[in-house]
Amino acid sequence: MEKRLKIRISYGPNTAMGPGKADLLEAIIECGSISKAAQKMNMSYRRAWELVNVMNESFISPIIITSHGGSHGGGAFLSDLGLNILQSYRLLEKNMTLSVKKELDYLFNQLK
Amino acid sequence: MEKRLKIRISYGPNTAMGPGKADLLEAIIECGSISKAAQKMNMSYRRAWELVNVMNESFISPIIITSHGGSHGGGAFLSDLGLNILQSYRLLEKNMTLSVKKELDYLFNQLK
Repeated sequence: MEKRLKIRISYGPNTAMGPGKADLLEAIIECGSISKAAQKMNMSYRRAWELVNVMNESFISPIIITSHGGSHGGGAFLSDLGLNILQSYRLLEKNMTLSVKKELDYLFNQLK
Repeated sequence: MEKRLKIRISYGPNTAMGPGKADLLEAIIECGSISKAAQKMNMSYRRAWELVNVMNESFISPIIITSHGGSHGGGAFLSDLGLNILQSYRLLEKNMTLSVKKELDYLFNQLK
């Protein structure tokens, strides 16, 4: 079974950023819309919107910008803040795993 | 609202160790029983047992040992492996927070 270190930025009762939300942001960048990103992740449209709303309400300004209507229907993209937050989160994940390699190896080795 | 970095050791579909499980282990050490530890954490007895079972089934040998009956009723304590895992997890949490202070400060500062 997969052994993984997962990190979350919790903010009050919510998770402002975590593994699922970071994956969703990357899917939004790739797909250009929330519905297509949700499809790609096998996530319901409703669930994707919940995650988007939690992120947009947690940070000082929106990190996902949506546009409604137009000839191509609604689209979604990341704000500059959103791109910075995603990059920082991925850096955090990577550096953490490296910086605590010893303790992490010990814990992983105790799993069946 | 509280801003916190939370780390989890995921193992397949389960969380083998995380903030709630580590707190429960400390409550078991303090209280000497799963029911009292659950009470202390405002957690149902059923939920505490679920967490104990996930931990005991994830690692190579049990980390919580329970004894049934006797003049003082059932008790619970941590095995040596359990104590080591708890210590490693707390160390991991502390070192991580220190080692990625820059990225973490950035992310925390973007929260409302």
